[in-house]
Amino acid sequence: MVPTLQWREEEGILRLLDQRKLPHAISFFDCRDPDSVATAIRQMVVRGAPAIGIAAAYGVALEAREALRMGRAADLSSACERLAATRPTAVNLVWALQRMKRRAAEIGPGSPKELAQALTAEAIKIHREDLEMNRAIGRHGAPLLNSGDRVLTHCNAGALATGGYGTALGVIRAAWEEKKKIAVFAGETRPVLQGARLTAWELAADGIPVTLITDSMAGFLMKKGRIQLCIVGADRIAANGDVANKIGTYTVAVLAKEHRIPFYVAAPSSTLDLSLPDGEAIPIEERDPKEITEFGGVVIAADVPAFNPAFDVTPARFITGIITERGVFLPGEIAAAFRPAP
Amino acid sequence: MVPTLQWREEEGILRLLDQRKLPHAISFFDCRDPDSVATAIRQMVVRGAPAIGIAAAYGVALEAREALRMGRAADLSSACERLAATRPTAVNLVWALQRMKRRAAEIGPGSPKELAQALTAEAIKIHREDLEMNRAIGRHGAPLLNSGDRVLTHCNAGALATGGYGTALGVIRAAWEEKKKIAVFAGETRPVLQGARLTAWELAADGIPVTLITDSMAGFLMKKGRIQLCIVGADRIAANGDVANKIGTYTVAVLAKEHRIPFYVAAPSSTLDLSLPDGEAIPIEERDPKEITEFGGVVIAADVPAFNPAFDVTPARFITGIITERGVFLPGEIAAAFRPAP
Repeated sequence: MVPTLQWREEEGILRLLDQRKLPHAISFFDCRDPDSVATAIRQMVVRGAPAIGIAAAYGVALEAREALRMGRAADLSSACERLAATRPTAVNLVWALQRMKRRAAEIGPGSPKELAQALTAEAIKIHREDLEMNRAIGRHGAPLLNSGDRVLTHCNAGALATGGYGTALGVIRAAWEEKKKIAVFAGETRPVLQGARLTAWELAADGIPVTLITDSMAGFLMKKGRIQLCIVGADRIAANGDVANKIGTYTVAVLAKEHRIPFYVAAPSSTLDLSLPDGEAIPIEERDPKEITEFGGVVIAADVPAFNPAFDVTPARFITGIITERGVFLPGEIAAAFRPAP
Repeated sequence: MVPTLQWREEEGILRLLDQRKLPHAISFFDCRDPDSVATAIRQMVVRGAPAIGIAAAYGVALEAREALRMGRAADLSSACERLAATRPTAVNLVWALQRMKRRAAEIGPGSPKELAQALTAEAIKIHREDLEMNRAIGRHGAPLLNSGDRVLTHCNAGALATGGYGTALGVIRAAWEEKKKIAVFAGETRPVLQGARLTAWELAADGIPVTLITDSMAGFLMKKGRIQLCIVGADRIAANGDVANKIGTYTVAVLAKEHRIPFYVAAPSSTLDLSLPDGEAIPIEERDPKEITEFGGVVIAADVPAFNPAFDVTPARFITGIITERGVFLPGEIAAAFRPAP
């Protein structure tokens, strides 16, 4: 599969697979500076909480490298601010920027070359570690799936949303690699259709059986006994286990509860925000109503206002378990398991 | 507002507002014989359970009129079969055809002219009575809405889906005409977008405040306390009060139950099918997967299978009340209230 993010050292660029064009075209968006990374995140060239964290880390490295090339002082604070301002909900962005700032502080501004090298290395490390966390999530989650299970997922928490392999789709991939005969129902995920365009595409590329449905069909399938398990990703997880994820996730969770179907969230620890006691304080991005009222520039709705929250919060009580790189936890266990030792 | 169905006696045609083209164009589809009516129903030129019943009634009248014109015997049985075969879920179609057949039997084949006149008059009567039932539904339902309420509806159960005024939207219209300050959230209703194209259009035309959302946002709004009531239409209601309606209705009902929000169904008695003990036996139409994977002929999804059930069944226990032309009933009361006296 085409990598979501490629660091190209010889050219000094971050090459992003342009997810706006998928599945119709494989094209790339090259970033040479933090602002092109910020643009790519804002315009959803790259999306998915872990992937935008990784992209932002490379954005910080690109600032240090550009400063070195231009013979000016790197302005990491400003670059981080611009990157942080792109999208508010996924905490991985903040997490990655903090990690880059910590690394920069260790190096100090004395040697611009050393700074650029260290920050590049740190971004590559964040990227590689994300892939490793996804594979661990897959290993821990795969035992939850049985041969014959049909799994519902929402949005795209796959290789395209991460450093590779995927979180929710990583669990599905790992079960598939263990030769479990599973099949996936992918909710199309209006308004941006990440399910129809991305999840369907990457599962089909791996030969994993996938059937597309509209988001409104999840209840019908559950009532008919055709879904055994739900797995989704996350954009931010609060200390009590409340989970922000793509709009529509909460609806899936309510349906799963009504039908007594397990509902799992798969996410790396970089998605945890233990500073928030619960999900109420998670900022929910509102996007352009045109995402709902237009398609490919063509108006598809009557001329009325539309409301477009991009995420919702699923309370911990709807969540069967959170699948992390360290194992599967109850939502209420997550803070104790990941709180740094004092 | 432009009428959904117009009988034009001088031309002997049924003129349908072409709902495939809304809201972009006001155009018409003229039917001169039962097969053009069948085509219009199948292709969703006209849709909505009451409206397709009315259209089918005119289709039968058109057969009698065509036979008279051509000097041949009317083949009403064959015309009814072709009309009945267009769409399986809405029972109003069957109901209207049975009523037309009963009227034809009263007249008998002896006088083709009398038959054509009687069937035309019967179709006009079915049409007029539907409008009257909708206004009665509005009167009975309006007291359920309070000023300040925000009402969620799904699909289009409006003037466009009926002989005029609407069922679910009839209740909303009646409350609005009583000067109640209500506002509507319209689910866009994937895949065919009846909410975005039709409900938003007809409410905006009447000046009723309406905000468009994707179907996946209903849970978010309910959790935020922004929905006080749900009202939807119906395609078929079984004897126990189970309701078939547009796919996604069941999901709204589950969400409403979780949030303790009243969930009402508005439908005329022509939507009742007391021959079915419960909703399990209601046939659910599956439509072309391209409705999900394509938009306006453009592929919008990866090349994977899609599943496209057009309706779902909401069990009676999720339904607060059924608003009919005779008043508001508990789902469990509906059979006794409408069962013909023995």
